[in-house]
Amino acid sequence: MLGLEEDTVRAAVAGVRRDSGTVASDDVGDIFARASWAGIAEPGDGTAGALISALGARRALAVMLEGVAADRIANEVLDRASIELRVDTIRSGLDRWRPRLVAGDALAALHRAAQRGVSLVLPGDLHWPSGLDDLGDHKPNVLWMLGDRSALTSLSASFAIVGARAATKYGEYVATEAAAGLSDRGFAIASGGAYGIDGMAHRATIASGGVTVAFLAGGVDRFYPSGHHSLLTEITKRGAVVSELPCGASPTRWRFLQRNRLIAAATQATIVVEAGRRSGSLNTAGHAATLGRPLGAVPGPITSVASDGCHRLLREFAAVCVTNADEMAELVTGEAPPTLFDLPGGDGAGVRVLDSLSKRSGRSIHDIAKRSGLAPAEVQGALGLLELEGLVVEAAGAWRRR
Amino acid sequence: MLGLEEDTVRAAVAGVRRDSGTVASDDVGDIFARASWAGIAEPGDGTAGALISALGARRALAVMLEGVAADRIANEVLDRASIELRVDTIRSGLDRWRPRLVAGDALAALHRAAQRGVSLVLPGDLHWPSGLDDLGDHKPNVLWMLGDRSALTSLSASFAIVGARAATKYGEYVATEAAAGLSDRGFAIASGGAYGIDGMAHRATIASGGVTVAFLAGGVDRFYPSGHHSLLTEITKRGAVVSELPCGASPTRWRFLQRNRLIAAATQATIVVEAGRRSGSLNTAGHAATLGRPLGAVPGPITSVASDGCHRLLREFAAVCVTNADEMAELVTGEAPPTLFDLPGGDGAGVRVLDSLSKRSGRSIHDIAKRSGLAPAEVQGALGLLELEGLVVEAAGAWRRR
Repeated sequence: MLGLEEDTVRAAVAGVRRDSGTVASDDVGDIFARASWAGIAEPGDGTAGALISALGARRALAVMLEGVAADRIANEVLDRASIELRVDTIRSGLDRWRPRLVAGDALAALHRAAQRGVSLVLPGDLHWPSGLDDLGDHKPNVLWMLGDRSALTSLSASFAIVGARAATKYGEYVATEAAAGLSDRGFAIASGGAYGIDGMAHRATIASGGVTVAFLAGGVDRFYPSGHHSLLTEITKRGAVVSELPCGASPTRWRFLQRNRLIAAATQATIVVEAGRRSGSLNTAGHAATLGRPLGAVPGPITSVASDGCHRLLREFAAVCVTNADEMAELVTGEAPPTLFDLPGGDGAGVRVLDSLSKRSGRSIHDIAKRSGLAPAEVQGALGLLELEGLVVEAAGAWRRR
Repeated sequence: MLGLEEDTVRAAVAGVRRDSGTVASDDVGDIFARASWAGIAEPGDGTAGALISALGARRALAVMLEGVAADRIANEVLDRASIELRVDTIRSGLDRWRPRLVAGDALAALHRAAQRGVSLVLPGDLHWPSGLDDLGDHKPNVLWMLGDRSALTSLSASFAIVGARAATKYGEYVATEAAAGLSDRGFAIASGGAYGIDGMAHRATIASGGVTVAFLAGGVDRFYPSGHHSLLTEITKRGAVVSELPCGASPTRWRFLQRNRLIAAATQATIVVEAGRRSGSLNTAGHAATLGRPLGAVPGPITSVASDGCHRLLREFAAVCVTNADEMAELVTGEAPPTLFDLPGGDGAGVRVLDSLSKRSGRSIHDIAKRSGLAPAEVQGALGLLELEGLVVEAAGAWRRR
């Protein structure tokens, strides 16, 4: 395996699979290959994903190590797996990956993970967030996790609550109410661990005794942002901090954008609380929409630039306008799907008859008919209903409002 | 005509058709019959509308006056006009209208109108707001108007701006910006003359030198609310105050609801600025939606009950989220229809290459390829584009960020 002793690899893998529970694959070679791919291909590399899905992580790595040419991979290796990839796509992939093929990198990441108590979660594991599989070839090959594995299982009923780093007091209030309200209703809350909305969502979930998961754009051994070190530490105790990047990896803009796809895919619906016009949380929203996940946006004052992004989502992205935890929950429970509502105005005859009555003087049906412009029979019917509702009263053939 | 001398009727009609310009119908009998119907049938009475549309206002009135039985009207009179109305629908209509058939009422209303300078506008008149015709049998038979007839013509490019009486400072600010912005763009602004949002919309339009029209729920000789007497007087100078109710008629809840259909129908699109959960402006919104008119709602803080109705419109009524006059104008110009927008993130390779560059030290393409996880050829392509954008600079094969 990459020229390493099998015992070395086995020991390294054992260090990150200590509490793996039901293990999808105890194939040490596969696990090590997945950990290696995490350092070789950038998040969301669909060519790597297709290759791994066709050949398995180990074989895909071996093919690359053995220097098999792109056209042979396309025409022979993949052909047998009924996967089609263009030769130049594969060649470009090999050109991307080969410079990063350093034997010691994965080993170092695994050692570092073992030291920090980080464990690996693999596709097919009991705790693997099944929503990630909807990413297809763009799904992560492995998750690196600090905290409670069962928090990942809780993602099967969960919301992403995301938003601007530069949140206002209004946004922070809304994020707090949303996270508390949804976790009270039994949902886990996932977010990105950032300042502003993300942080408030995690904090409010913890304060409500709920489960929260933070997805990071770099290795989980390097908490980012550093100002959230104690919050992220708290999250590992009350949930999990997760990344597809190996330990030691630093966050980059690209990785933030790709991290957002994990947040959108791992959860059932995404709520954007506050977002500037070019906020990264719109990227998360875009992933949610692409995946067909329900997308909610919280409105705010049009005078606040921190709500511009939410308004764009409502206007241009068909996001659902959500103003409280009940409406957010409905995004996934479907208990009260958006419908046309009853317009104020109600029963015309009732309104018109009430309009024609006095509280002081009683009026005859004929008088009411003339005043309301209704036929006497319509007046009589309306009066009967209004009487049942306790809104009108009759004495000696004269009706008045109560 | 209703037992009145023809000269009396002719004189009364002349008093309200002085400045009628191109007149759709100079048939005095028809005009008087329409004015009569305005006092006999309540606004929006579809049976009266169907009868008038089939027989003409004069004949419809005569049929009622002559005591023609409902089944004969259904089977003989209407049959020839190819209109179908059920016998019991007609009978119920006759029962509604007959108690109100008082010869002097229409005459009194016309005299009152003539004294106050109110004139009549008829369907087919040059100034008749053609949007009202979309109401079909529920359209008004006549409009009573104070002010400038040409203001009604301006409704062919117009917005309804409506909202809560109990507006907040935020709502008043938004209404002002919306009305000023839309009238600057050449649109007339219609509203209901009420306190709160309506009043601000009229005021801001006047202040911008625009044209504004107020639709009232009672006669235009009785300004309602009385606290808006000077505003409504001002509107008659800079636009028009209009009603389908005859002079002397008082506003009722039913008439407010029906008045709302005129606002929605006469304009090209309706904007709800602020509305409580059961606000009457939701009724206007409902009419707009029913008529297929574009409907915009302005979001606000979810902590403000004055925005609850707008959020319901966004959530349950597929209203378009509008946050400025440009977005409102787009509702009718269709210049920038809602579309999926470009997600922040952009070109993956560009972002990843920029992520991998330093401002201080230059890096080789090979180094950048390894850092970004891109193939050298992809790096080269991205660098070329970034160089064109002036974002990167090269010296002796080493690239750095500017």
